[in-house]
Amino acid sequence: MDHLTGRAVVAQGGGPTAVINQSLVGVVMEARKWPFITQVYGARFGVRGIVNEDFLDLTLATTHNLEMVAITPSSALGSTRDKPDREYCARMVEAFRRHDVRYFFYIGGNDSAETCRIVADYAREVNFDLRVIHIPKTIDNDLMVTDHCPGFGSAARFVTSAFACLDLDNCAIPGVFIGVVMGRNAGWLTAASVMARRDPKDGPHLIYVPERVFHLDRFLDEVEDVFRTHGRCVVALSEGIVAEDGQPVLLKLQGQAERDPFGNLQLSGRGTLGDTLSDLIKQRLRIQRVRCDTFGYLQRSFLGVISPVDVSEARDVGETAVYFASSLSSDGSVAIRRTGDYSVDYFLTPLDTVARLAKPLPQEYLKGSNDIADSYRDYVRPLIGAIPHFDRISAPPVALH
Amino acid sequence: MDHLTGRAVVAQGGGPTAVINQSLVGVVMEARKWPFITQVYGARFGVRGIVNEDFLDLTLATTHNLEMVAITPSSALGSTRDKPDREYCARMVEAFRRHDVRYFFYIGGNDSAETCRIVADYAREVNFDLRVIHIPKTIDNDLMVTDHCPGFGSAARFVTSAFACLDLDNCAIPGVFIGVVMGRNAGWLTAASVMARRDPKDGPHLIYVPERVFHLDRFLDEVEDVFRTHGRCVVALSEGIVAEDGQPVLLKLQGQAERDPFGNLQLSGRGTLGDTLSDLIKQRLRIQRVRCDTFGYLQRSFLGVISPVDVSEARDVGETAVYFASSLSSDGSVAIRRTGDYSVDYFLTPLDTVARLAKPLPQEYLKGSNDIADSYRDYVRPLIGAIPHFDRISAPPVALH
Repeated sequence: MDHLTGRAVVAQGGGPTAVINQSLVGVVMEARKWPFITQVYGARFGVRGIVNEDFLDLTLATTHNLEMVAITPSSALGSTRDKPDREYCARMVEAFRRHDVRYFFYIGGNDSAETCRIVADYAREVNFDLRVIHIPKTIDNDLMVTDHCPGFGSAARFVTSAFACLDLDNCAIPGVFIGVVMGRNAGWLTAASVMARRDPKDGPHLIYVPERVFHLDRFLDEVEDVFRTHGRCVVALSEGIVAEDGQPVLLKLQGQAERDPFGNLQLSGRGTLGDTLSDLIKQRLRIQRVRCDTFGYLQRSFLGVISPVDVSEARDVGETAVYFASSLSSDGSVAIRRTGDYSVDYFLTPLDTVARLAKPLPQEYLKGSNDIADSYRDYVRPLIGAIPHFDRISAPPVALH
Repeated sequence: MDHLTGRAVVAQGGGPTAVINQSLVGVVMEARKWPFITQVYGARFGVRGIVNEDFLDLTLATTHNLEMVAITPSSALGSTRDKPDREYCARMVEAFRRHDVRYFFYIGGNDSAETCRIVADYAREVNFDLRVIHIPKTIDNDLMVTDHCPGFGSAARFVTSAFACLDLDNCAIPGVFIGVVMGRNAGWLTAASVMARRDPKDGPHLIYVPERVFHLDRFLDEVEDVFRTHGRCVVALSEGIVAEDGQPVLLKLQGQAERDPFGNLQLSGRGTLGDTLSDLIKQRLRIQRVRCDTFGYLQRSFLGVISPVDVSEARDVGETAVYFASSLSSDGSVAIRRTGDYSVDYFLTPLDTVARLAKPLPQEYLKGSNDIADSYRDYVRPLIGAIPHFDRISAPPVALH
């Protein structure tokens, strides 16, 4: 097979993760091995760095520096929320031509895969030989084809650890607690909260994901029911939960709040889904202690909360991307296939099987109206890794005098 | 010296921490060694478990179970927000009398120390021989006399790690980010965010604590200034920041919001300090990407984010409390004295030197209007422990073609 000879460009798209730099370093280290890849450039701030020709020459980074970057959370090259159209992608290809770039590696989610697809199509149209490889990354875990996405395992580990400690907190000072988890369209990450529950009495007692319609009245009934049974209630809630008409619950509640003459449901407009539901629980269920945390950006790349399997696979998809680029004659997205309990291998899937699409939590992972099935536990367990041990006191009560 | 013979009761007060159970287990393990302490009871849900005589017999807990509980975050016996008055404390002493309790160990902050003080006074008045020892615990680190408080180091480690990753996140997708940290009256914990800054370009660029008056207009100027210099700005903000008149800024902003005819500053009333300031930055400075996270309950006892020194000292204050109770003939609060870099010893300070009082960040730890001095870094470094390494890419830019 004839190899394309020229430069490689690697870029990072979308939100940071705890391990995305492992994939970056995997690409750079592997690309530096091959004589037909003449130099490895890193595009600063994603695709914007390509159209702006804002590159770092990663051929000259030391191996030690790269290994330090690999263990650093967030996107070391910088990222962007730009969603390139055909014209933008044309400018990218022209920049590639000027710099004699023949390999483009883009680490990101389904939007990044879509960019790869448009770039690859355009390059083919204008007869510019370019190999385009998409490298999966997203804490949302919603890419098609692949068994799971690098970045998800570490975020899921954070969510599991968070709910374990918040449940212990709620045991110590009982009440209702709502934890709001990222995931605009899919409940993969929110579902990971179930891993904090060991005993049936443990929280989270109720888990709400966007794959199921959220009924406000049913939610209040369910909270009340758990609170009556356990004297407390821990709720895991996806930020993206939707109402019957398909509208996000946050928008509906805001609408409701604006019409409230008493002022106590009025919102500033962001991250307040949990606060609004807390208010409703206080008002309608007359429960005094209701607390809510929105996990925010901490959950996507917390320093020191990293899944070992996630680290390993994030590196592997980066290195494997270069291997596929050099050994196969097609573009594509690197995907993970689960081959055992627990083992994986990698394959290349066509870009259009991943681009733009989102994979919701399958129905088989849902249980009832507010729980997650054991089959999901089996799926997610190896991705999170072992979390620290913890236990409750086991001692007999003293008889009253 | 004649030892008091009878039972011991241990209880946990106030908010949970990552290491409060180390102190609990320290008390239990040490108390079980002494023949004159006939049994060790744990009061469930703090002082409420004493007046309700809701005890666990920890004499019968296995050593293994206790060691597992020790490494578990949050308060294993349960806690309470009850603030006992003299009548409540009298009921506690009567419960002690009925159960032949001669040693009372209460793990908590300055409110718990105050409870200890009232209980000890009342017992003395009614000629009931009782030894009362307060064991320090608070993530706020605001107890008098002691160099620092168990629980603070681990929370400070969380805050440092959080700002390290949020700063990396903000580098990847630049904008303004505000992180709101716990600490109603003192800025000890918010100040720990400074440990995430290694290079002068790193965030947090601005740190606001309750020990300094917060001027809204100056704040906006400072954010704008940093944003102009670095193209981004990371802010660490204590939830308890106060305005010139001593009123919490949150209350003032809410008041302002209620008078705003446009509705966009209206608040639901909790955790929205950061959101409101974010709105003001967007409106007045015309900066588009402004984000805010309120760290919430995660910061006080996150599973797996624990400072080794904090673990060790939390255990030590618990064990030492029993040693002081058996070897000294006075009540008191266990305090930590820093003896070297880094070493400590423990001593007993009178209950009224700790009860109710709060220790603010000393002026010498503040720098300018929005920064923390290097002397604070020296103070806090050993308490946090080493955080994971991370680094930026070091590679030359590619010349434009």
